Amino acid sequence: MIKHLAIVGATGAVGREVCTLLDERNIAFDALSLLASTRGAGTRIPVGRTERVVREISDGAFQGVDYAIFSAGGQQSKRWAPIATDAGTVVIDNSSAYRMDPAVPLAIPEVNPGDLTGHQGIIANPNCSTIIMNVAVWPLHRVNPVRRMVVSTYQSASGAGASAMEELETQTADHLAGREVVPNVFPHPIAFNLFSHNTPIGPDGYNTEERKMVDETRKIFHEPEMLITATCIRVPVLRAHSESINLTFESPITPSEVRAILSSATGIKIVDDVGGGRFPMPIDASGQDDVLVGRIRQDISQQDGRGIEMFIAGDQLRKGAALNAIQILELLTL
Amino acid sequence: MIKHLAIVGATGAVGREVCTLLDERNIAFDALSLLASTRGAGTRIPVGRTERVVREISDGAFQGVDYAIFSAGGQQSKRWAPIATDAGTVVIDNSSAYRMDPAVPLAIPEVNPGDLTGHQGIIANPNCSTIIMNVAVWPLHRVNPVRRMVVSTYQSASGAGASAMEELETQTADHLAGREVVPNVFPHPIAFNLFSHNTPIGPDGYNTEERKMVDETRKIFHEPEMLITATCIRVPVLRAHSESINLTFESPITPSEVRAILSSATGIKIVDDVGGGRFPMPIDASGQDDVLVGRIRQDISQQDGRGIEMFIAGDQLRKGAALNAIQILELLTL
Repeated sequence: MIKHLAIVGATGAVGREVCTLLDERNIAFDALSLLASTRGAGTRIPVGRTERVVREISDGAFQGVDYAIFSAGGQQSKRWAPIATDAGTVVIDNSSAYRMDPAVPLAIPEVNPGDLTGHQGIIANPNCSTIIMNVAVWPLHRVNPVRRMVVSTYQSASGAGASAMEELETQTADHLAGREVVPNVFPHPIAFNLFSHNTPIGPDGYNTEERKMVDETRKIFHEPEMLITATCIRVPVLRAHSESINLTFESPITPSEVRAILSSATGIKIVDDVGGGRFPMPIDASGQDDVLVGRIRQDISQQDGRGIEMFIAGDQLRKGAALNAIQILELLTL
Repeated sequence: MIKHLAIVGATGAVGREVCTLLDERNIAFDALSLLASTRGAGTRIPVGRTERVVREISDGAFQGVDYAIFSAGGQQSKRWAPIATDAGTVVIDNSSAYRMDPAVPLAIPEVNPGDLTGHQGIIANPNCSTIIMNVAVWPLHRVNPVRRMVVSTYQSASGAGASAMEELETQTADHLAGREVVPNVFPHPIAFNLFSHNTPIGPDGYNTEERKMVDETRKIFHEPEMLITATCIRVPVLRAHSESINLTFESPITPSEVRAILSSATGIKIVDDVGGGRFPMPIDASGQDDVLVGRIRQDISQQDGRGIEMFIAGDQLRKGAALNAIQILELLTL
C-alpha cells in the first residue's frame, strides 16, 4: 500500500522508535528512506533484521515518497514539510509546528480518527502528555462529558530526546560518584531532582507544555471551551510519562462506572490492584503500547459525586509519539 | 530553660536532623539523652562539635526528662510516649500515632501555635507533606478562605527514612551498572521510577498518606469540613518533597495578591523567576528551612477568578519533620 516511506529525524529517540515499530507492526512498503541532518547522515539504524543507513535530508529527498513521518523538531518541520507536500508526500508531523493550524488535523486514532478525512497533506501528531491524557479521558467524556480537568504531570527525560535521557544517566552517575553535576541539555540538574517544564511561560503564567495540553485537548475533543488546567513537571524517569488527573463530569459518576467504561476502551490497560499494591508506574508503561490507568477513586472534595481522581502512565516514545504516528499512517493506508 | 531533653529514634534520618538543628538553633539544655532501640544503641551522633553516644531506650530513661522529641515510628510512640508522660516528660511526637486524637494538639508554629496551650503531655507533629502544604496555603486561607484544594505530591525517599534514601542511591547505581534492581525498603523499584505512595488504601480508595493530608489539614486549620483531595506519589528524589497545588478561594484572588500575601508570611520563600526560568526544586529546598513557592498563576479553568495554581518544594527532613518539632519545642520553652 505504501510505495515509499520516509522517516525524517530517524536518528532521534522518536525516529528510532518509529523504525522499531515499522517492523513490530509489519508496516509494508516498497521503499524506505531514513533521513536526518548532516550530523545524523551515515548513522546505521536497525529496521527489523536489517540495518539501514541514514541519508542527509535534501530538496530532492521527497521525490516519489508518498508518506513521511517527521520527528526532527518544529523548525525542521517548518522547513521541510512544505517541500515534502509539494512533492506529493503526506506528512505526519510529530512536532508542534502545525498542531494548532485549523487546516491541519490533530489526531489520536482512539479519539478522533474521523478528523483525518480531508487533510491537506499534513497531519499533526499531538504532544506526548496530551495524547496519554486524552486516551484515558476520552472514553469517559463520550459517556459523561468532562466539564473540568486538573492535571499534574510527571514527565520523563525522553520527552526532551535521546540526549536528555543520556544526561539523566550521566548526571546520576556523576552525583553518585560525588562529581559535580553539570546540566547541558536541561537548564537544571535532573539527577535526583525535578523541575517545572522548561518551556517558555506566557503572560497567563502557563508554560508552553501546559498550554499544549489545554489547547490541543480542546481541538482533539472538539470542545473549544473545555475547562482544563495543567502543571507540567520534569522528573528523573527515563521514558514514560505519568499524570495525576482530577476530573469533574457533567453528571455524577462512580469509580465502578469509570472502570467499566475504560475496560472496554482501546489503548488502555487498567492497573488498579489495591490488594497487591500495584498501580501505574513508568517502568511498567515503558515499551508498552497501552496507557496504564489506576488509582481510580471518587474525588472526596466534589461532594455531588461528579468528581473522579486517577493516575496514569504511558510510554512517551510509543503512544506519546512514535506509535500514535504509526497508527495514523495505518489509518491513512488502510 | 530545658533541664533534660531526650531524642527518641536518634539514629533515624529525622532523629539525626533533630540533632543537627539543636546546635544550629542554639537549643540550650542541661542534659541530653539520645535514645534508640537495641540495634541503634552505641551509635555515635554528632551534636554541635561533640559526638554523643546513643543509649537504649528503657522504662527508666525518662526520669528527670522534661522534654522529648520522638521520631521512631508510630509503634514506638504508642509504647513509650505513655511511659514518658507518666514520668512528667512533655512529648513532641513525629509519628502519626496521636495526630488525630482530639486531646492532642497537632501543631505547625506558623499556622496554629495557639493549639499548643492546654496540651496534656503529648503534642503531635503533622505529616511532612501536610506541613509543607499548610505553611504555603495558610497565609492565603487567613485572608481569603480556601474552599477546595486539589494536590498532587512528588515525595522524596527521605520520607521513608535513611534506609530508603540509601536504597534510592544503591538501586540507581545498580541500574546504571546494568545489575538487577532489587527492592527492599520500598515495594517497587525507585531508581528512575515513581509509584503511588505505598501506604494502605481505605474503602474510599485514598491511601493513608492522602488521608493524612486531608484529615490533618482540616484539624490544623480548624476547618473540619474543608474540601481537600490528594494524590501522593513517591519520586526518585533524595530529601525534599514537592507539591502541585490547585486552590479554589471563597472570593476572587489574583497572582499578585497571592505573591503579596506570601511575601510577608513566615517560613516561605517565593521562587518564581519567569525570566530566569527558576522555580521551586527539591535540590534547592534541601537543607533549607523555608518552603519554596512558585509557578503562582491564575487557574484558567476557574473562570470566576477564584482559582490559583502553584508549585511548592520543602525539605521533608527539616520543615516536614525535625524543624517543625524543634520549633514546637522552642514555643513550649519560651
